[in-house]
Amino acid sequence: MGSDASERTAVGWAARDAGGRLSPYSYTLRKTGAEDVAIKVLYCGVCHTDIHQAKNHLGMSKYPMVPGHEVVGEVEEVGAEVTKFRAGDVVGVGLIVGCCRQCRPCKSSNEQYCSKKIWSYNDVYPDGKPTQGGFSSAMVVDQKFVVKIPAGMAPEQAAPLLCAGVTVYSPLKRLGLAAPGLRGGILGLGGVGHMGVKIAKAMGHHVTVISSSGRKRAEAVDRLGADAFLVSSDAAAMAAAAGPLDYVIDTVPAHHPLGPYLALLGLDGKLVVMGVIGQPLSFASPALMLGRRSIAGSFVGSVEEAEETLAFCAARGVTSQVEVVEMGYVNEALERLERNDVRYRFVVDVAGSNLGGA
Amino acid sequence: MGSDASERTAVGWAARDAGGRLSPYSYTLRKTGAEDVAIKVLYCGVCHTDIHQAKNHLGMSKYPMVPGHEVVGEVEEVGAEVTKFRAGDVVGVGLIVGCCRQCRPCKSSNEQYCSKKIWSYNDVYPDGKPTQGGFSSAMVVDQKFVVKIPAGMAPEQAAPLLCAGVTVYSPLKRLGLAAPGLRGGILGLGGVGHMGVKIAKAMGHHVTVISSSGRKRAEAVDRLGADAFLVSSDAAAMAAAAGPLDYVIDTVPAHHPLGPYLALLGLDGKLVVMGVIGQPLSFASPALMLGRRSIAGSFVGSVEEAEETLAFCAARGVTSQVEVVEMGYVNEALERLERNDVRYRFVVDVAGSNLGGA
Repeated sequence: MGSDASERTAVGWAARDAGGRLSPYSYTLRKTGAEDVAIKVLYCGVCHTDIHQAKNHLGMSKYPMVPGHEVVGEVEEVGAEVTKFRAGDVVGVGLIVGCCRQCRPCKSSNEQYCSKKIWSYNDVYPDGKPTQGGFSSAMVVDQKFVVKIPAGMAPEQAAPLLCAGVTVYSPLKRLGLAAPGLRGGILGLGGVGHMGVKIAKAMGHHVTVISSSGRKRAEAVDRLGADAFLVSSDAAAMAAAAGPLDYVIDTVPAHHPLGPYLALLGLDGKLVVMGVIGQPLSFASPALMLGRRSIAGSFVGSVEEAEETLAFCAARGVTSQVEVVEMGYVNEALERLERNDVRYRFVVDVAGSNLGGA
Repeated sequence: MGSDASERTAVGWAARDAGGRLSPYSYTLRKTGAEDVAIKVLYCGVCHTDIHQAKNHLGMSKYPMVPGHEVVGEVEEVGAEVTKFRAGDVVGVGLIVGCCRQCRPCKSSNEQYCSKKIWSYNDVYPDGKPTQGGFSSAMVVDQKFVVKIPAGMAPEQAAPLLCAGVTVYSPLKRLGLAAPGLRGGILGLGGVGHMGVKIAKAMGHHVTVISSSGRKRAEAVDRLGADAFLVSSDAAAMAAAAGPLDYVIDTVPAHHPLGPYLALLGLDGKLVVMGVIGQPLSFASPALMLGRRSIAGSFVGSVEEAEETLAFCAARGVTSQVEVVEMGYVNEALERLERNDVRYRFVVDVAGSNLGGA
């Protein structure tokens, strides 16, 4: 317990410009404050957002930037006021490491919607110090944004739950779609989509995977446990399936028509949109009105919901399907992720990597 | 009680082609069946949908067509199995006069979402007989689709509640937006919008009217009781108002951007779309995601909800603001409605009109 109040050096892998290629980068972490947890990073998942940020697709990137927001690590040191964690605990950190604590979202434990939230990387703390993410030897994070990894859960399995997992768990719960017996659709079978299938199945749903090709049919049904598989370009199959779904989780991170997926929804059905997409999405108003359907946005989940997601997955034996790689492979991993060539999430074995050089 | 089982002649005002001009038209009504209520029409509201149908804007019009779906009348005769109504009752009929009674929407009292619903005009009964609406001396309607007008409510005031009123009441109730203290926006101040202001105020909401010009400001605030008024083209005022609304009821029946109204919504805010619009509407996915907002469709309301709307309005003293006209004026009324020149709903005094000729 107690902080030694000294800054420590971390070695991360940073993008230096919009080329987005990561390479070793040394920087200092802030002193472990009274409410802080100093974490030795063990594993960090690779999310599509990391590509957007590293390559400045959103026009807001600052360099050098150490990405990574699905972080699992071991507590090395805690501040004087920290009671929830102690050295040796295995913990997780997600997309957010700060918030204003005053606004309506913050006061209702929805800090991910705080307009002053602080992202775990590519952002700055109030004192101007840049935040840096989990592709790094270490992080110092306010205890409010740290969660405990359940005993017995493999840390590399836990990493994708901190973003991809909570991203699907949160809207299912918030929109009243966590009850058993519902019929759900998962559009897109990437990192978020595969967690969608697993979590929805664990909730007791009938799950249809909807994909742009039949390539992943066997995997979706045989390995992930989906009940049905639809190829979106197969108009006859899509028409035959119209109407019976209670929800579709739309994980596609690029522009696409919404009409075919709205048509799959029954009365009060919900299309949950979770891809940050530059071009506007469109819909015909009667497709929403006749069926009392809705299009709902959702953005990751709160820290509380991350804890719930972890507990839910631990209790139901839900695991992520990951490909563990070393840091030296991270640039190849980003390239493969960009062309959707991964089953289903890369996780970097940070502690097991030589961070000092490629 | 008891039917004389003879067909009766009705005189309505019908459109004969896509010109949409109404003129007298005689036709027979079906015999009053065991479950039927024969109604002498007293008043019928004029809704924007009547223009779409009369002028074949949706490409599905059949002529001759007698429009009108905000019908208030007096029961003249009831079938042998009818227990809910008797001769002399003042009753209402809305947009729907039939449904399959077997599907999930029908079984959950959401018959307006039945895929086999029968519209009160421009549709056919299972035996092939056309349905004809309320711009007519009489209608014969299955008791399931007839509601009682509360004692003491003026019939011409009640007519707009059967479509415009329930159209706003239904989504507010269904989406959990009927509680006092909420902050709502009403986009567009026509027939539906003005009922939106009145019903939302009666629910105890802080109501902001959003309009394309400042022309209706005094009316909205002084006459309808709105708390605030925003001109949508006033970027500074719109920006200043961003974030605090729990919902916006979007009554605009033409293409418009959604972004400015999504920006008015706070966390979990809902944009309720109720205009049948030919051109697709579009939105930026982050505008939904960051705020966990949703775009919800809604289409009139059920018969049960029409009864609730009438009871709510009777209890709270909510009335519609109407301009009562004779049938001979209906074509002028349709033209004025088309250019939005009415405060706020035309209601035709059918029983007080000479229906035999212009």
